[in-house]
Amino acid sequence: MATVGTLRIDLNSDLGESLGTWRLGNDEAMLDIVTSANVACGFHAGDSLTLQQTCAAAAERGVVVGAQVGYRDLAGFGRRFIDMEPAELTADVIYQIGALDALCRVAGARVEYVKPHGALYNAIVTHEEQAAAVVAAVVAVDRSLPVMGLPGSVFLGLAAAAGLRTVSEAFADRAYTPEGHLVSRRQPGAVLHDPQEVGARMVRLATEGRITAIDGTEIEVRADSICTHGDSPGAVEMARSVRDALTSKGVEIAPFTR
Amino acid sequence: MATVGTLRIDLNSDLGESLGTWRLGNDEAMLDIVTSANVACGFHAGDSLTLQQTCAAAAERGVVVGAQVGYRDLAGFGRRFIDMEPAELTADVIYQIGALDALCRVAGARVEYVKPHGALYNAIVTHEEQAAAVVAAVVAVDRSLPVMGLPGSVFLGLAAAAGLRTVSEAFADRAYTPEGHLVSRRQPGAVLHDPQEVGARMVRLATEGRITAIDGTEIEVRADSICTHGDSPGAVEMARSVRDALTSKGVEIAPFTR
Amino acid sequence: MATVGTLRIDLNSDLGESLGTWRLGNDEAMLDIVTSANVACGFHAGDSLTLQQTCAAAAERGVVVGAQVGYRDLAGFGRRFIDMEPAELTADVIYQIGALDALCRVAGARVEYVKPHGALYNAIVTHEEQAAAVVAAVVAVDRSLPVMGLPGSVFLGLAAAAGLRTVSEAFADRAYTPEGHLVSRRQPGAVLHDPQEVGARMVRLATEGRITAIDGTEIEVRADSICTHGDSPGAVEMARSVRDALTSKGVEIAPFTR
Amino acid sequence: MATVGTLRIDLNSDLGESLGTWRLGNDEAMLDIVTSANVACGFHAGDSLTLQQTCAAAAERGVVVGAQVGYRDLAGFGRRFIDMEPAELTADVIYQIGALDALCRVAGARVEYVKPHGALYNAIVTHEEQAAAVVAAVVAVDRSLPVMGLPGSVFLGLAAAAGLRTVSEAFADRAYTPEGHLVSRRQPGAVLHDPQEVGARMVRLATEGRITAIDGTEIEVRADSICTHGDSPGAVEMARSVRDALTSKGVEIAPFTR
Repeated sequence: MATVGTLRIDLNSDLGESLGTWRLGNDEAMLDIVTSANVACGFHAGDSLTLQQTCAAAAERGVVVGAQVGYRDLAGFGRRFIDMEPAELTADVIYQIGALDALCRVAGARVEYVKPHGALYNAIVTHEEQAAAVVAAVVAVDRSLPVMGLPGSVFLGLAAAAGLRTVSEAFADRAYTPEGHLVSRRQPGAVLHDPQEVGARMVRLATEGRITAIDGTEIEVRADSICTHGDSPGAVEMARSVRDALTSKGVEIAPFTR
Repeated sequence: MATVGTLRIDLNSDLGESLGTWRLGNDEAMLDIVTSANVACGFHAGDSLTLQQTCAAAAERGVVVGAQVGYRDLAGFGRRFIDMEPAELTADVIYQIGALDALCRVAGARVEYVKPHGALYNAIVTHEEQAAAVVAAVVAVDRSLPVMGLPGSVFLGLAAAAGLRTVSEAFADRAYTPEGHLVSRRQPGAVLHDPQEVGARMVRLATEGRITAIDGTEIEVRADSICTHGDSPGAVEMARSVRDALTSKGVEIAPFTR
Repeated sequence: MATVGTLRIDLNSDLGESLGTWRLGNDEAMLDIVTSANVACGFHAGDSLTLQQTCAAAAERGVVVGAQVGYRDLAGFGRRFIDMEPAELTADVIYQIGALDALCRVAGARVEYVKPHGALYNAIVTHEEQAAAVVAAVVAVDRSLPVMGLPGSVFLGLAAAAGLRTVSEAFADRAYTPEGHLVSRRQPGAVLHDPQEVGARMVRLATEGRITAIDGTEIEVRADSICTHGDSPGAVEMARSVRDALTSKGVEIAPFTR
Repeated sequence: MATVGTLRIDLNSDLGESLGTWRLGNDEAMLDIVTSANVACGFHAGDSLTLQQTCAAAAERGVVVGAQVGYRDLAGFGRRFIDMEPAELTADVIYQIGALDALCRVAGARVEYVKPHGALYNAIVTHEEQAAAVVAAVVAVDRSLPVMGLPGSVFLGLAAAAGLRTVSEAFADRAYTPEGHLVSRRQPGAVLHDPQEVGARMVRLATEGRITAIDGTEIEVRADSICTHGDSPGAVEMARSVRDALTSKGVEIAPFTR
């Protein structure tokens, strides 16, 4: 959450998600907007050369790189839960962090945090064994690496208990339930499309730590970072609108690592 | 080559080449014989958990770990040449080194050298672009990492020119031509099967820098390391025979990194 | 179930589960024992050439070939549940059946039934959506193809309702609960190791439709086929023991398709 | 080649080349333009569900489906030569044809021809072993399946010698050398960008069997089909321009299979 006084927040986005001929997202545009780049690691998306170039482009702009680790499932883009053994998952996460970190270091940067992707992200909101497996991987690689996830998730809870720094994120274009959860995409109104409205919501989030839930109630949402998307022209515009709204209200956009 | 006076040589073997349910080689037995382990990196073989366990088993025994980088081709086990763009190959090699290094560091070790695998190994004996691409990857990751390869190869030549330490290897169970090349596997007599004979050959290699070619002529072979295999019971016995023959003649078996 | 009078039963086994360099199971030995071969389709195991050769070897011996369809997960050998969308699963199953059928037809045979593999097999014992997706695939490809599965599973129930012929199987080397389910592998006594005992059990199954559960009670088990394994020397011996016990008691071993 | 009198030619395009989340090309638009669809088979591109939907969309419009077989290389989109053993390649091609044919049949269509993709297409212009391997696969699956390729290629030569029907194709937007080869993409002028010019060229090809080479000389080009692309808005416009130019000159656009 933006600390009162500094009014500062991080913007993050999923990047490096192309695969060879298949291009996805507008990484160049998004790197001019966000302060933290969740870069894919080759398991759900990202060929090595794309990842190297994405890390280099982030490094050039001073955007912080995080390892966006996922299930090994290109055809499913990491969006399908896989019932892996914890030891396998730990090893796969270590492997991905190391691979991306090497590509980063070649570009003069390094992996500075870890954010699970897609079905893994969702699974470890509640799946204790897989959450613990991801935490174990980060602890094993480097205890100083923060992890990014959903506020209140089992994952962030276990990570904190293991001594890792946790980074909570809010979603710019998603509606919230009165309990502070995301409204399921299957329900009407789950995704917000108006850049002005979204910008204003994120200003309130950053300045007051509050957001209006889908039923109109006011809820507290703690967020160190705001997740934005860049996989369509409209998405890039939305992300820029969020950034502009925040900076126009005096909220500093800065990596959470600073 | 074993320096006169010290009479010391390295033994290396390809390890970590299982994939999930599919087991290959007797890694435990080989780790008691060799001093350098060329561990697969997941592209031609090796699931993450197997790699992590192999690195841990090597670290426990003080066996040095090298990254055995290859083409991304599980079905072909990295034994089929792929005509990749150099930039793609460089990124793939960086990715693999980083992935394995992270798994190593978790086990208290680290990647201490790089050895290309299979068709990539063979290709860069002569393929200048791909050889340069592998060299570029190692230079980018860490200029202090030695590279292992075939004496006289374009790869080792370019590596040396780039300032990398090069490690030449001889093959324990392979016949040589009078020119010092390996006899093609398609020719009779290309592979040696008698552990006693192979052991004696390697003693001569380590103590005199000489070997008897397939036509009976004596040739000079420079080798810092001897490659042995462990993918069959006979292969393990052969490797042990080489080690015993060398030590019985006072040749110290030690990692080339020492 | 063996029809009273004819006393006939099918023996099936999972085959074609190698992948390039990685060999698994003793397919040649098993093809001399079983009457139905569940041949992998490349998603959980099986490179195309291995599959072609396995189909040819089966065809030579008159062993019936079934398509053993699974999740696309080589690293996990299809043993990890993947939460796929039904439409994706249906398409993947159609794809696999077609691929194997083409390799079969080249060998003068054809795919004569479908048996899900590993985690998919287990999932559709209870997972209605995925069970329906597999049934939909078989119905779409060829309504005359029987499906093999666990007696009492949602899968066989839905298949029967869709008009498919269902083939129930028993497991030769597994203990059963008094309710007729398999004892979990995590419990002691779940797997039987004595070839004589297993042979005798299968004789009772084939001749009386009964088996002794792990608590000593007698239960009815309906089975058109007995599943045997061939992935170790002991497993092959066990399979042969089952066959010998059955034939010595006058039970004919024949494909269920006859 | 357009038979004098009928003035008829086929238009083909590569389709079904998306992979899960990654979309490529405008298949719907192209299916309204072409008469033959070279549908990917999952090795270089195409998840099963995309392929099924592409086959269904083609079937609805009466567009003929061909199997676009390629190397197993998603990261390289099948554009990197892989030095496979012929027997492996044959099995991979059989596998791909069978898989796509099953998806087609579910849609009420079937695979009616085979066209190699990318690096395989280019390799077998001259690579005898791989060309023979592809021919062997088609012969094994169905001798009545035509194969599409480059006029004068080793592939079409071997296919004809094996009794297969061969279909020669011309490339709408590519410049030709005076010898009738394609000008390398690395040379200036290799790719044509003016829809009017391209349309006029294809009219001459279809009506006179002639085309103007890059140096201005007139050459004979034999083509039963014209290859067009649909992977960009400009490409779709180009394809439509070719179709409109041909029909406006009385050339019938019809599948070569009719």
